[in-house]
Amino acid sequence: MKILIILGSESDSSKIEGTEKLLKEFKVPYDLIVASAHRNPKKVGQIASTADTKYDLIIAAAGMAAHLPGVVASHTTLPVIGIPIETPSLGGFDALYSIVQMPPGIPVATVAIGGAKNAAILAVQILSLKYPKLKVALKALKHKMEKGVKI
Amino acid sequence: MKILIILGSESDSSKIEGTEKLLKEFKVPYDLIVASAHRNPKKVGQIASTADTKYDLIIAAAGMAAHLPGVVASHTTLPVIGIPIETPSLGGFDALYSIVQMPPGIPVATVAIGGAKNAAILAVQILSLKYPKLKVALKALKHKMEKGVKI
Amino acid sequence: MKILIILGSESDSSKIEGTEKLLKEFKVPYDLIVASAHRNPKKVGQIASTADTKYDLIIAAAGMAAHLPGVVASHTTLPVIGIPIETPSLGGFDALYSIVQMPPGIPVATVAIGGAKNAAILAVQILSLKYPKLKVALKALKHKMEKGVKI
Amino acid sequence: MKILIILGSESDSSKIEGTEKLLKEFKVPYDLIVASAHRNPKKVGQIASTADTKYDLIIAAAGMAAHLPGVVASHTTLPVIGIPIETPSLGGFDALYSIVQMPPGIPVATVAIGGAKNAAILAVQILSLKYPKLKVALKALKHKMEKGVKI
Amino acid sequence: MKILIILGSESDSSKIEGTEKLLKEFKVPYDLIVASAHRNPKKVGQIASTADTKYDLIIAAAGMAAHLPGVVASHTTLPVIGIPIETPSLGGFDALYSIVQMPPGIPVATVAIGGAKNAAILAVQILSLKYPKLKVALKALKHKMEKGVKI
Amino acid sequence: MKILIILGSESDSSKIEGTEKLLKEFKVPYDLIVASAHRNPKKVGQIASTADTKYDLIIAAAGMAAHLPGVVASHTTLPVIGIPIETPSLGGFDALYSIVQMPPGIPVATVAIGGAKNAAILAVQILSLKYPKLKVALKALKHKMEKGVKI
Amino acid sequence: MKILIILGSESDSSKIEGTEKLLKEFKVPYDLIVASAHRNPKKVGQIASTADTKYDLIIAAAGMAAHLPGVVASHTTLPVIGIPIETPSLGGFDALYSIVQMPPGIPVATVAIGGAKNAAILAVQILSLKYPKLKVALKALKHKMEKGVKI
Amino acid sequence: MKILIILGSESDSSKIEGTEKLLKEFKVPYDLIVASAHRNPKKVGQIASTADTKYDLIIAAAGMAAHLPGVVASHTTLPVIGIPIETPSLGGFDALYSIVQMPPGIPVATVAIGGAKNAAILAVQILSLKYPKLKVALKALKHKMEKGVKI
Repeated sequence: MKILIILGSESDSSKIEGTEKLLKEFKVPYDLIVASAHRNPKKVGQIASTADTKYDLIIAAAGMAAHLPGVVASHTTLPVIGIPIETPSLGGFDALYSIVQMPPGIPVATVAIGGAKNAAILAVQILSLKYPKLKVALKALKHKMEKGVKI
Repeated sequence: MKILIILGSESDSSKIEGTEKLLKEFKVPYDLIVASAHRNPKKVGQIASTADTKYDLIIAAAGMAAHLPGVVASHTTLPVIGIPIETPSLGGFDALYSIVQMPPGIPVATVAIGGAKNAAILAVQILSLKYPKLKVALKALKHKMEKGVKI
Repeated sequence: MKILIILGSESDSSKIEGTEKLLKEFKVPYDLIVASAHRNPKKVGQIASTADTKYDLIIAAAGMAAHLPGVVASHTTLPVIGIPIETPSLGGFDALYSIVQMPPGIPVATVAIGGAKNAAILAVQILSLKYPKLKVALKALKHKMEKGVKI
Repeated sequence: MKILIILGSESDSSKIEGTEKLLKEFKVPYDLIVASAHRNPKKVGQIASTADTKYDLIIAAAGMAAHLPGVVASHTTLPVIGIPIETPSLGGFDALYSIVQMPPGIPVATVAIGGAKNAAILAVQILSLKYPKLKVALKALKHKMEKGVKI
Repeated sequence: MKILIILGSESDSSKIEGTEKLLKEFKVPYDLIVASAHRNPKKVGQIASTADTKYDLIIAAAGMAAHLPGVVASHTTLPVIGIPIETPSLGGFDALYSIVQMPPGIPVATVAIGGAKNAAILAVQILSLKYPKLKVALKALKHKMEKGVKI
Repeated sequence: MKILIILGSESDSSKIEGTEKLLKEFKVPYDLIVASAHRNPKKVGQIASTADTKYDLIIAAAGMAAHLPGVVASHTTLPVIGIPIETPSLGGFDALYSIVQMPPGIPVATVAIGGAKNAAILAVQILSLKYPKLKVALKALKHKMEKGVKI
Repeated sequence: MKILIILGSESDSSKIEGTEKLLKEFKVPYDLIVASAHRNPKKVGQIASTADTKYDLIIAAAGMAAHLPGVVASHTTLPVIGIPIETPSLGGFDALYSIVQMPPGIPVATVAIGGAKNAAILAVQILSLKYPKLKVALKALKHKMEKGVKI
Repeated sequence: MKILIILGSESDSSKIEGTEKLLKEFKVPYDLIVASAHRNPKKVGQIASTADTKYDLIIAAAGMAAHLPGVVASHTTLPVIGIPIETPSLGGFDALYSIVQMPPGIPVATVAIGGAKNAAILAVQILSLKYPKLKVALKALKHKMEKGVKI
């Protein structure tokens, strides 16, 4: 059981702290790689095309013309979760459209702009199909949220 | 192995033909239920809260203030895929925002406006964690698309 | 005569201070409950479906994919007033569309993004049908505003 | 018990057929007046400032820079429901913002773009505070919708 | 030769400093009145319907559902210049659409969001048809701007 | 008394029929020139810089990146009225922003997207400062509109 | 002298007819390849990384989450011109943002939504740096446009 | 080998520092001129129409109704790169549309909102057709970016 997190830019690492924190709480191991779809296309291609030998799913976060999640998805049959990162000029509109509006054939499971925590929870929900003990943890989280505990 | 598809309105059934066609090609069984988050809230709540006894994941499609995917997600720990359906007045903007911008704790895996086919492929990618033979089918689809076969 | 205010998140309580202040000035009693449509769906369902035994109308405020007002409306025949709360990334667009674009059958009376004060005034206007003395108070407020008194 | 419907333009009368049909089903009497906020400002002012002697609430529908609902609201303490009417060039965005974004002091209860039916239902919900038998009719409608009857 | 400036709210007075500064430089006298289209509809109606006895044109500035310029225009045949004022939640979109999208029959000459200076220059350009000496001042300003002098 | 109408493209001539029709009704003479800001920049510059010897004001209509009204305004001190023309892909948003968002110093009096009729009425309102008999015609039009006559 | 045109989907070939027509008029040879950034990522990578041995520049056209131009640009140092293709649901907004909002380091020279003709002219302008006779043809085109000849 | 940078306003000079820094690193000489399309139309026309005698291409940056790049392009057959500059009220939307949505015949190669660095790289890519040694420098930059060096 392992997740790959790919981040388009080192400078966005604070934007996925919520993802990392929750994965740690769920005890889901992950690797974190910084690789830009635009500056490291070959590296991204190599990582993504062999990802299914090591990982169960991929989370990719990027801003602006956020191609990273879609480019990763084009190289793998693993589920890919995309996190649109807000940038100042267009408030994240550009990243949202660049991630969610994928053409038929290559889906990206898109969460909210800045939805780092939900990317982790969605990842755990997906993993729980294969690793049933995660279902218990997800239900525990749901109970905690019902009682008002902040995640 | 079974998927639940929930549709907000009978009149939207043509909008998920792509989902049904692809699930059939992948030989993934599914149930299709029409239940509006707004007109049948209790029915939706009952279906969603017991869905994990029968289904592996849920696909929900809705337009306008498209609450259905999020409401379903609030009642289950199954992965929920949301399809925003285009409506004339705002071109699907309203449905996209109502589905993708979920608050922390309750993710919806959102695909493109009108992304019925991608909802099916994403569903199969997720199921393939548990049912490895689907991986073979996904790779076959990817090869077909590489050769230009339309899906 | 009593109003129910439901807030999606404790952290939004500053956003409805304008509602509370004005209801107090109009001497309209209210209960304030924090319950998320997504994290507490059953609680919201129970509160909303029995609200007509205790309340005359409901004010619901939420941000992002702001389902709370619509979910509340789906469980009651009381008038429901929705306040879209601004969030940083999309400036309140997402909340506005998620609240106002309700499908036929289940209306939400939507006020401006951040329109906490207007939610209170609209509530009092509605209550004044049943409690005519509120008409006097509303006309007094209108006169004060004509003279330039800030509300 | 009587409702006033004001329409900005004769040519928009097809856009409120849903309002009229539902009010008739609820047996709620109404008057329908065509008066533009811009071409008949005095007429609108006179009608609106004396409306509370004859009507319980006002429904106003308009497109483009849709000032009619707000202008009506500025002259009365009755609840005013606003229906944004879609126009070709901006898809109803302009009408929605012109109606919903009212400044503090003068609310308009805004429904969806083209939300003629919901304007009627919201009106009946509001009237039901004063005329309790309408509650019975509203609950009957809710039951019918639960069973899938289209409104 | 006199201009009327109407401002929807006292709190917006800093937003038209650019208008006042330039009118003073052009030695064009003006009156400044604060009157809200929504809180003082009768006052606005009276001022606007008699404005052509004292003024050559009207400048109206407002934010949010910015009805003031259109309401003023509905009561007069004077040219009305509208200034959309930016508000935090929607960046001035709402005010722009509420002012510029006037229906056929009642134009408002709209300048940019926050375009206080241009409202003054446009006003002087219009006045210069009747008061030719203003043409000289306008050409002098144009020459200064060509040389890089900031206005 | 004469107005200059400049049109960016021959193919847009149907879009200003409303302008021409109303100017004829007001008996305001005009010249109509087709000259693109982008394809005929020198012609536009020459026409605009000498326009004040022959015309009282200029109406300019253009679509897409609609620079024509602003470019004309940069060459003259006459009032310039801009009409944003709707084009299929962005519904006139692009033309509206390109015309209304002029920087300080060079205003364009912008009317609604497709606001050909209002451009004529605004032009006549402006001309009426210099030619008072137009005031009579404007008031007559206002009375006709009050009675419901369509313009 | 040769240009590479890459199209994301066979079904978009009608959208670049304007590009082909103009390149033929300029007698600029080109190859046209259909290869999706998402369905043929390796093919796109191979073509783009070796394109500088055969081509002077690349024109790439795509719709929705239009990654093709950016992905091509990530593999080459040739100038890449991007054409956003309009799709029904979001009017080309999504394609425009996905193409133009490239992060620092990897530019795409973006033309208008549906700007097939301008992509050709921009390409010829760029080529004319190396092939001066194209300058003559460009000036001839400019003269023709000045005279009103449609391109 | 020389580039012309035109800036609409002195106050925007900080917005093109990225362009200047990169051109210096590539040792590409440039002239920087401040000239507004609106305040200095003749100067802009003269500079642009003779630019092809001294320059290989032009970079133009402007905000709001950003006509400068299009106006420059209308006077030359040189490639023109446009940089939309963000302004507070509309987040750069207005500048982006005013620059990218050029009509057929007069392209502007548009980069991202605030894309000063990419304007320089695109310029160097274009120049490299004529000055092959720049290809070496571009490939070196690409290698540096692959290794994670920030530009």
